[in-house]
Amino acid sequence: MSINAFVQSLPLLDHHAHYLIRGDVADRAHRLLRVSSEADAQYPITDTANRLAWSAFQQTARDFDPTVAAAYQRGATPEEALQPMDADHYRDYNHRVFAAYHYQTLFIDTGFVPDDAILDLNATADLTGLTVRPIYRLETHAEAYMQQYADFDAWSDHFLDAVGHVRAHGYVGCKSIAAYRVGLQVTPVTPDAARAAFDQWRQHYEETGVARLENQDVINYLLALVAPALINQHLPLQFHVGYGDADTDLYLGNPLLLRSFLRRFCYDGLQVVLLHCYPYHREAGYLASVFPGVYFDTSLVNNLAPSSTMSVVRESLELAPYSRYLFASDASTYVEMYAVAAQTFKAALAAQLDAVTTATDAQKQSWARMVCYANAANLYGVAVTATD
Amino acid sequence: MSINAFVQSLPLLDHHAHYLIRGDVADRAHRLLRVSSEADAQYPITDTANRLAWSAFQQTARDFDPTVAAAYQRGATPEEALQPMDADHYRDYNHRVFAAYHYQTLFIDTGFVPDDAILDLNATADLTGLTVRPIYRLETHAEAYMQQYADFDAWSDHFLDAVGHVRAHGYVGCKSIAAYRVGLQVTPVTPDAARAAFDQWRQHYEETGVARLENQDVINYLLALVAPALINQHLPLQFHVGYGDADTDLYLGNPLLLRSFLRRFCYDGLQVVLLHCYPYHREAGYLASVFPGVYFDTSLVNNLAPSSTMSVVRESLELAPYSRYLFASDASTYVEMYAVAAQTFKAALAAQLDAVTTATDAQKQSWARMVCYANAANLYGVAVTATD
Amino acid sequence: MSINAFVQSLPLLDHHAHYLIRGDVADRAHRLLRVSSEADAQYPITDTANRLAWSAFQQTARDFDPTVAAAYQRGATPEEALQPMDADHYRDYNHRVFAAYHYQTLFIDTGFVPDDAILDLNATADLTGLTVRPIYRLETHAEAYMQQYADFDAWSDHFLDAVGHVRAHGYVGCKSIAAYRVGLQVTPVTPDAARAAFDQWRQHYEETGVARLENQDVINYLLALVAPALINQHLPLQFHVGYGDADTDLYLGNPLLLRSFLRRFCYDGLQVVLLHCYPYHREAGYLASVFPGVYFDTSLVNNLAPSSTMSVVRESLELAPYSRYLFASDASTYVEMYAVAAQTFKAALAAQLDAVTTATDAQKQSWARMVCYANAANLYGVAVTATD
Repeated sequence: MSINAFVQSLPLLDHHAHYLIRGDVADRAHRLLRVSSEADAQYPITDTANRLAWSAFQQTARDFDPTVAAAYQRGATPEEALQPMDADHYRDYNHRVFAAYHYQTLFIDTGFVPDDAILDLNATADLTGLTVRPIYRLETHAEAYMQQYADFDAWSDHFLDAVGHVRAHGYVGCKSIAAYRVGLQVTPVTPDAARAAFDQWRQHYEETGVARLENQDVINYLLALVAPALINQHLPLQFHVGYGDADTDLYLGNPLLLRSFLRRFCYDGLQVVLLHCYPYHREAGYLASVFPGVYFDTSLVNNLAPSSTMSVVRESLELAPYSRYLFASDASTYVEMYAVAAQTFKAALAAQLDAVTTATDAQKQSWARMVCYANAANLYGVAVTATD
Repeated sequence: MSINAFVQSLPLLDHHAHYLIRGDVADRAHRLLRVSSEADAQYPITDTANRLAWSAFQQTARDFDPTVAAAYQRGATPEEALQPMDADHYRDYNHRVFAAYHYQTLFIDTGFVPDDAILDLNATADLTGLTVRPIYRLETHAEAYMQQYADFDAWSDHFLDAVGHVRAHGYVGCKSIAAYRVGLQVTPVTPDAARAAFDQWRQHYEETGVARLENQDVINYLLALVAPALINQHLPLQFHVGYGDADTDLYLGNPLLLRSFLRRFCYDGLQVVLLHCYPYHREAGYLASVFPGVYFDTSLVNNLAPSSTMSVVRESLELAPYSRYLFASDASTYVEMYAVAAQTFKAALAAQLDAVTTATDAQKQSWARMVCYANAANLYGVAVTATD
Repeated sequence: MSINAFVQSLPLLDHHAHYLIRGDVADRAHRLLRVSSEADAQYPITDTANRLAWSAFQQTARDFDPTVAAAYQRGATPEEALQPMDADHYRDYNHRVFAAYHYQTLFIDTGFVPDDAILDLNATADLTGLTVRPIYRLETHAEAYMQQYADFDAWSDHFLDAVGHVRAHGYVGCKSIAAYRVGLQVTPVTPDAARAAFDQWRQHYEETGVARLENQDVINYLLALVAPALINQHLPLQFHVGYGDADTDLYLGNPLLLRSFLRRFCYDGLQVVLLHCYPYHREAGYLASVFPGVYFDTSLVNNLAPSSTMSVVRESLELAPYSRYLFASDASTYVEMYAVAAQTFKAALAAQLDAVTTATDAQKQSWARMVCYANAANLYGVAVTATD
């Protein structure tokens, strides 16, 4: 079997994704177009329509739905071709698309909720035919506890207690969006400074009602606070890195800024997963090659920048071990976004392996399994059924 | 028609270029060699001769001038082969080369003047056969007004009044070289701090006679000052970004540093054009994909680094909409520099489009038109005659 | 002759390498595996085994040693296949491998000493069949003099005197690891600040016995101190840049941070060599294209990231003159590491040149010679026997 055919046949564990939405949403074409970009509602939709992601998302709909293909063939607009679906049709369509790429498991970051989201993970499992597990977003819960507890110690204790029981509550990992709030230069903070920073944050909340956590010292504190609890539960800590919407400062999303944090906790057993990483994926591959416990993916560009995937996968694996690189989609909303991630990623991984002249076919197949599902299964402690 | 043949046939609007020089300049070979690099006169010319740009510039001269080709064929040196030309020969040569790449319009940044420049834009139009329009360089004029007005308010009022009439005076855009003077971290400044900074600048001028604007707060002030006037006139604001000569600090030329400025003005309608961008073109593509009104080009490497163009165009279009990416040359001095930009760019754009498997030929042709001329025509408000 | 055959035939001057070790070391497979990565002993060796470098190193052993090839063929493990060698076998093996890539000269950075290193350069010359020359590591010697001299002036005078005689003692260049200690933002320092910084450093040494130089101002001082002495002796100054082990802060290893130092000394004749550079090789190529006296290589990824070499060589030569780019391996320990560097580098350089359409074969051959040995021979003032 060619390495390409082998990779195509492998199951996928998608360790970083978001909620799907209902199939009967009226403006399906518009929603699919919107989610083909990280731009927000103030960005002109006509520009979004001139990106390759939109072209690829529509192609997936044509490939898997003969009705859509026929409509485009007749010259229908996307609005005409991409109609809402009833429950049975939608379920069948989702099953077919996910199955075509051998998706097996989805981890859902519950911290982002699109309109019309299917919040029930069992319903998501039924819709997709996949095993679904939740990821716990740290800042979201830290904000909720701050609203409950005005006192630093009470907040700290209750938050830590909650994080200490995350695995028991079915979560398979935690995620930090420090990159969105302050940047990745996470450094040690004294208890006094943390307490003062918390008080400022709480006071701001009391005055404005805004609970959003944007304080560097509070974030420094909470990440160091939870690290031992994550190590104890064998729970990986995901970080948003690099590419995101206009609300993130990409300059401060460079994973090299995390070095102080990695030096402090990775040697004690913390497992850190760098998400997305583009355009810093070479930097992420470097970190994975020298720090114990550092893993990474290049999600979100394999669907939103489909023409990048060949280069990005190749550049990611220049320094990184195959045992530290993971497939992920960071997809949400509609199955097309998950599909394009899988399609471009499998093709790129196969091409990367095909160009290797110093390894046997068996070795290449082993590496392909690691990247598609085995690394994530080991890292997060979940089972995947090998199908090859 | 193949997409390559289609792209080759498209007209080009070059929205960022500089003055050409006279054809009868004696040391034509030396001048052409010098302009094949961003290095200054202290850089060894023998190293400049070992760059691919010099090789490509000579190839263009051979391709379009049988006399030059014959001389090289006989073993002539570049100094022997590349002779000055009389006016008729020079005009004919320029017309032929620009026409071969379907150049139609040149925007000239009037802030940089090479020796022996043809300053009259009508003469440039006659020499090249192209429509020629000027770009207004902000810092140059701010410096001139500072020399006239010792008082902050007088300077500010007169400068703003001038910028407010730029479109009426025939300019099609403004350009800032903040990256050359202080870096791209343009941030808000208070009126008092701006006034104090102006007074320092003016005092330094009175003491030294040096008017060069290198004060961060003055630059912060003037960019915020002119932004509304540019929005009112539908005039784009170009920024030098990334690659330039040894006088720029490339570390501070990262377009991600502009984020604060973009957040402040792009949502109000300011149109910002990031020029050159290399090696930060992936970052520029990201900004164009999430901020309204952000456009970019990858000029100056398509001629000075001709072997880069395939990768650079591909990387630029990973995230960016086709409707936000522009052709430009940043060329000056001799037609060969404009030609190599067009030659490598058209080949790379065609290759990028040819690799797309999810769009129709009609869609690809539409995207090619946007990049070659239509985006710039809309952005700057000028007409281009479609020839396809 | 094809350009590929031509490049394969060229001699190599490796201007940045480290000590080889003895052939009779018992755990040869483990040592070879360890050196296939920049990770330290705390990094899981199973991850190191899943990197392409390990695969390439083993392939080299199979290619050049029929006994090893036969063992792998029988299904032997690396530990079984890669046995220690007696002196004759080891010498013959080293000679054959170095000769296959036409290695001719090695410069050894004497500042890093692997276990079981062959410290005698004559013994290294005998083992390898190559000319061997030493490089003087500045920080190592500055630390030794600080331990001898408690007084700033005495330390400074003795250190400068030593550096002033480096060429006379057979060294062909100096190297700074400022990137490992403080980062590359080397700036001017006043004598008083330097003196105070030295006193702190010395006091720390007296209190702790730790001589390691990590003080920014001392490093600023010593680099400015030695620059004129290096210019006088026509000795290049190498800087560690970019890629290295977990002990370097890659964020501060960006060569653009050296700009202040380059502006201060390159116009006076200092020759600076940027080592490794990945992932900042485009930035290094830019610096080489605009600053007199700046050279660079992309060592350490051509063996530790063998799948990167095609892209990295291509990206390095986008802006840089061929006369400023050098082959180097940064290899140590075993010949396989030197071999993989040469193998991937020669293939990539040939491919880069083969894609050039604007130069003659003679020009391409001249450029290939420069990169493989002639630039380094001129820069460091050593002879290489051209074999083509």
